[in-house]
Amino acid sequence: MPRALHGLAALRSLLAPRSVAVIGASPTPASMGARTLANLQGFPGRVFPVNGRYTEIGGRRCFATLADLPGTPDVAIIALAKDRVEQAVADCAARGVGAVVIYAAGYAETQEVEGAAAQARLAAIGREAGMRVVGPNCAGLADLRRGMVLGFPEFPASVANGRAIGLVSQSGALGLALAQAAQRGVALSHVLTSGNSCDVDVADWVAALAESGDCAAIALCWEGGAPRDRLVEAGRIAAARGVRIAACRLGLSVLGAEQALFHTGSVVAPAEDFTGLCAEAGFVPVQRIEALIETAGFLAKAPARPLARGVGIASGSGGTAILAVDAASRHGVAVPAPAAETVAKLRAALPAFAAPRNPCDATAQVTANPQVLRGVVDALLGDPAIGALVCPWGKAYRSDNIAFLGEAARRNGKPVCLVWMSQWLEGPGVIEAEAEPDVAVFRSLDSCLAAVAAWMAQAR
Amino acid sequence: MPRALHGLAALRSLLAPRSVAVIGASPTPASMGARTLANLQGFPGRVFPVNGRYTEIGGRRCFATLADLPGTPDVAIIALAKDRVEQAVADCAARGVGAVVIYAAGYAETQEVEGAAAQARLAAIGREAGMRVVGPNCAGLADLRRGMVLGFPEFPASVANGRAIGLVSQSGALGLALAQAAQRGVALSHVLTSGNSCDVDVADWVAALAESGDCAAIALCWEGGAPRDRLVEAGRIAAARGVRIAACRLGLSVLGAEQALFHTGSVVAPAEDFTGLCAEAGFVPVQRIEALIETAGFLAKAPARPLARGVGIASGSGGTAILAVDAASRHGVAVPAPAAETVAKLRAALPAFAAPRNPCDATAQVTANPQVLRGVVDALLGDPAIGALVCPWGKAYRSDNIAFLGEAARRNGKPVCLVWMSQWLEGPGVIEAEAEPDVAVFRSLDSCLAAVAAWMAQAR
Repeated sequence: MPRALHGLAALRSLLAPRSVAVIGASPTPASMGARTLANLQGFPGRVFPVNGRYTEIGGRRCFATLADLPGTPDVAIIALAKDRVEQAVADCAARGVGAVVIYAAGYAETQEVEGAAAQARLAAIGREAGMRVVGPNCAGLADLRRGMVLGFPEFPASVANGRAIGLVSQSGALGLALAQAAQRGVALSHVLTSGNSCDVDVADWVAALAESGDCAAIALCWEGGAPRDRLVEAGRIAAARGVRIAACRLGLSVLGAEQALFHTGSVVAPAEDFTGLCAEAGFVPVQRIEALIETAGFLAKAPARPLARGVGIASGSGGTAILAVDAASRHGVAVPAPAAETVAKLRAALPAFAAPRNPCDATAQVTANPQVLRGVVDALLGDPAIGALVCPWGKAYRSDNIAFLGEAARRNGKPVCLVWMSQWLEGPGVIEAEAEPDVAVFRSLDSCLAAVAAWMAQAR
Repeated sequence: MPRALHGLAALRSLLAPRSVAVIGASPTPASMGARTLANLQGFPGRVFPVNGRYTEIGGRRCFATLADLPGTPDVAIIALAKDRVEQAVADCAARGVGAVVIYAAGYAETQEVEGAAAQARLAAIGREAGMRVVGPNCAGLADLRRGMVLGFPEFPASVANGRAIGLVSQSGALGLALAQAAQRGVALSHVLTSGNSCDVDVADWVAALAESGDCAAIALCWEGGAPRDRLVEAGRIAAARGVRIAACRLGLSVLGAEQALFHTGSVVAPAEDFTGLCAEAGFVPVQRIEALIETAGFLAKAPARPLARGVGIASGSGGTAILAVDAASRHGVAVPAPAAETVAKLRAALPAFAAPRNPCDATAQVTANPQVLRGVVDALLGDPAIGALVCPWGKAYRSDNIAFLGEAARRNGKPVCLVWMSQWLEGPGVIEAEAEPDVAVFRSLDSCLAAVAAWMAQAR
């Protein structure tokens, strides 16, 4: 029988350690040991470099062995070459360390018997000692808001805007690529990776994040290193706490699944299982990785339930209005004709030559006169058949209307999706939009309507 | 019988005017007349403001009427309210002006008889005088490299890197949104819009651009304002000149097509017609507007013909390698096993724990040691079964390897696609990649493999 989820309590030594040992600490700049120590610069607890070759590294006392430490660390990061990892993990278990993080590769992902056996031994050591193991072949983890990094890559700084996303990625490199969304203003609480997942897996991370209350939604990507039962259970824990999950599974193709064996040694279920899992676990499935963060951002910002099943479309460009309708059709989202009262409000807001319809093309007037867009947004969000507003945003420019969209979303209890149509992908205005706690930013109408459709369907 | 295409010669007064009249010129900052004049600041020919209320605007002599001009302008921009447009167009025809550009809205897109009739009268005046008409309800056009703007919106400055894309958009606002790609380093030659397309339509623009030799590929988006025969003919003209076309049609859904009526008065054919048209005209169909510019960029940079039907995948992250294989599977692109000689080269390049496969996960070593990626790229591009290289790029950072990818692409006569996996969408390194004339930049593996598949299929 597979084990139950490691809950937040069991993972606290990893998520909120008071002391960290770095076994294999090093002053050599590019080494994993040095990069890990650099990442611990702002760590609020105690840091113990361990390496018999040094007595001091970067101003910190360096200990020859784990046994020399003045206390037992909550977590030990094993920044050693593979041939020295097992002994270090055994030493940690003997010392009573709460958890270890293992970077080294060369285990199950080699697809060779020895690698798989070595990985199983690491898992067994941890299991017998009640010590959590993250990895091997992993990049570590970070709590970005508390500046706590247990890992060697460069993690982004936190952005404290609106409702945060917790990011869980089996793959370290992919997780870090996604986490760079923080550089364009996306609020992330954590980046948690699991690599070969010999003990702690993505399901454990999801459940613990949901329990932590630190994030409003979770972005999850993984290939197969977690059993279905645990993923479903993690989904239920998250749902009970109102934390929504956007999920993207790697290896949906047969060849991709084969490749996953060589990455983290994961055995990947067929694509159909992904769809079924999402339905059962309450995950919002994301087909393309580039939509994962924006979908999670929407789920973090949208209210719990839609007040109606249709979308309003408010655009300053007729072309983007057509594209928005096309995307809504593709995802089965209704674009209801406005009620009589809404038509009257639209007429009052619009220039004479614009049609009081849904979608509403407010024409180029939206840049000349900001009030036009405001009137259209108020009219559509007030319509009883409309549960969310899609606002394709044509040109990169700063505008008070961005804050207005946030205010209107809050006032109506309906989410506003600002779809950035400009190919100046990080042009002026978009960081401001991302910072609005009630405005979801997409760079694809298709991803937007897919997310809205899933949100509306989940509430059924 | 529908008219033949306006060729480059017939559109030269628009694309290479020596003199421009602005009818409705104005000093009022936000007015279309003022914005048009501002856009003509760097225009190398003569500019004639026309407005009976002023004798001078911004240091230029202003003429009371068209009859007062010292010469006949090649083109007149009609920046007037709708009720004064028809007389102005008639005046231009009488004076022998080569072409007019009409901004005013309120014509066929109103879906009212009067609007359609007024538009038909404009077309008739132009047709009888042999005077080209752009619009009405259009944003104008620009030759970005020559700094020639006949329009009121803010057009981007040109980026002279690599092989340029000509952008043709029926919708002005959408065209400008896409044109902001220049801000992230995409080389654009022109932005040409047609609005309601009562005379000059997107097919004319495509054919003229192809004839001009100014661009290596064309990005086309439109809703229906051009007959199929002319689009096919334009596609053939482009194909004969080696200019490839990425095409995205708006209004693929029934509701979207209905919306197009209210935008530019266009009657849009069903979605099936788009697929058939692309096959016949040799357009590469693009399903999602956000992929249009990157697909056109790939077509501008890729060699004429693939040397083989498979792709190589060189990644620094196992996760992105899996996703790349998934995308290749989705689009039916082969990821061939490497030849024996390639395996040997991969082994020599890779660290011991990495597998000499295709896809090749070169592991995090690619950032620590740039030579690893170079060896992998050379090995895969040298494989006789591989016609293009897909390189998922995990982290935003500047690297000499970007220039290496360009050099390797040229040396092998095979395109390299750098797929920017970082969610720091305009982070360090990506402008440098875009500037490489032989490296196509995508931000979506799916868009990348769709483009590669279409390129390989077209060459059959």
